[in-house]
Amino acid sequence: MLTAETPRPAALTDTRLSRLSLNQRTIAGWTLREAIDGCLSTGLPAIGVWREQVAEAGSDTAVRWLAEAGLRVSSLCRGGFFTGADPASIEAAHAENLRAVDEAAALGAATLCLVPGGLPAGDRDLPGARGRVAEAIDRLVPYARDRGVGLGLEPMNPIYAADRGVVSTLGQALDIAEAYAPSEVGVVLDTFHVWWDPDLATQIARAAERIHSYQVGDWITPLPADALLARGMMGDGHIDFARIGSWVRDAGYRGDIEVEIFNADLWATPGDQVLATLVDRYLDLIYPYA
Amino acid sequence: MLTAETPRPAALTDTRLSRLSLNQRTIAGWTLREAIDGCLSTGLPAIGVWREQVAEAGSDTAVRWLAEAGLRVSSLCRGGFFTGADPASIEAAHAENLRAVDEAAALGAATLCLVPGGLPAGDRDLPGARGRVAEAIDRLVPYARDRGVGLGLEPMNPIYAADRGVVSTLGQALDIAEAYAPSEVGVVLDTFHVWWDPDLATQIARAAERIHSYQVGDWITPLPADALLARGMMGDGHIDFARIGSWVRDAGYRGDIEVEIFNADLWATPGDQVLATLVDRYLDLIYPYA
Repeated sequence: MLTAETPRPAALTDTRLSRLSLNQRTIAGWTLREAIDGCLSTGLPAIGVWREQVAEAGSDTAVRWLAEAGLRVSSLCRGGFFTGADPASIEAAHAENLRAVDEAAALGAATLCLVPGGLPAGDRDLPGARGRVAEAIDRLVPYARDRGVGLGLEPMNPIYAADRGVVSTLGQALDIAEAYAPSEVGVVLDTFHVWWDPDLATQIARAAERIHSYQVGDWITPLPADALLARGMMGDGHIDFARIGSWVRDAGYRGDIEVEIFNADLWATPGDQVLATLVDRYLDLIYPYA
Repeated sequence: MLTAETPRPAALTDTRLSRLSLNQRTIAGWTLREAIDGCLSTGLPAIGVWREQVAEAGSDTAVRWLAEAGLRVSSLCRGGFFTGADPASIEAAHAENLRAVDEAAALGAATLCLVPGGLPAGDRDLPGARGRVAEAIDRLVPYARDRGVGLGLEPMNPIYAADRGVVSTLGQALDIAEAYAPSEVGVVLDTFHVWWDPDLATQIARAAERIHSYQVGDWITPLPADALLARGMMGDGHIDFARIGSWVRDAGYRGDIEVEIFNADLWATPGDQVLATLVDRYLDLIYPYA
């Protein structure tokens, strides 16, 4: 096991990787410990962690491991799922999000990634569900503010509008975020979710310091059979990372760049191999425009 | 075979169906002749026809059959596919669209539905592809104008942005259309494609007399494995047809309402049964708000 104390080979201190973060979900088979070790052995300075894997390791242990490894936590995934319509669902979601804020605070995460949530079963009131997202965030802000945790609302590709994320555009997310200070409520900008948006350049410029996280992953076709696992490695699909990356850079974003890809083929590939490909693609497609 | 001359039973003159149109693709197994007969026996006054099925019957025969049946042609599907980047592709698409305009004129179609087209293989320049759609339409307008054919540009769900339709929002389609008279270039508004758009109410009001066609079909989850066949019968999914239908009505649309659903399960169901369900769902979910 490598730790921050272990001397690293020269290749591992490649400064070009100084903003590259592995979102754990990209190598879903790895435990948090394995993901930390993967980052250390590859020279990645940051990691996007998932609450499920943190819970598996135990929160205190996770915090200690990450501190010992000297890894930044570029995001904690995920809070949110705010769209339940009945009082019990709303209270349960709020309570769960308070716990997520506590974890983000303990981990020193750059943001708590908030997935909006989909339409409740049988409910077709999309504006209503969108309104509940705004209300739930409004209720969560004071608690997160007190703990110094930034809330990063993630607009999601319309492919998920019904069942996962009713906030469909960056503009919509910013409309919600702008009621608060940029450090309090911002956005998680994931290329997979926003690449198609004709208004993207304008909205990225508008987002500016509200960009709490920049995540990269490609849109591939034909779309894999399971829509939830439809993302691809950068370069395997249709997204122009140079263009979007430049917009994000010009908006002033200097934080970590997280690679987050949900893809069954990738999950069936050994993690070290995924990580090697990821670094190559990052250096080719992301780093030059970051 | 029923024709316009055949006396219809009372049920078949249900005035509530006076704007209901069957898009042929909803019952993909039917020839044009079978689709015409299905419309007649069910009391539908209009049909959205496909060029492939028209070609199969022969254009003159198709025109005669439709005239004899007294059916309105609510749309001809499809022209478009404008995004080829090399001169040969651009010329071929233009020539094909001229033929489509001729067919639309012969059929008296209310509009020629234009599918924008996707990114060419290996091409990631989405704004460039969008620009070529506008250019191709600009070039097509004089020919269509001379023949009295309206061009209906169809914004497509972002799920198809890469491989089928680079125009992703109604607003974007209207930006292109507004350079021309409303009768010359309008939009095909399909609930499946636009239901998620946070700006939809505003854009439908803006569209007004540019709505050349209103198509209905549902967004179902889980998304079927083949994204192209991901549409569902109205009521089987998440779309609020009352709300969107009211917006379309309030925008002044009084044309036919076409049911267009691409779905493998539906295609495996006998056409008469599909048509019966379609009429029921129309009366429940669409007609009251039309």
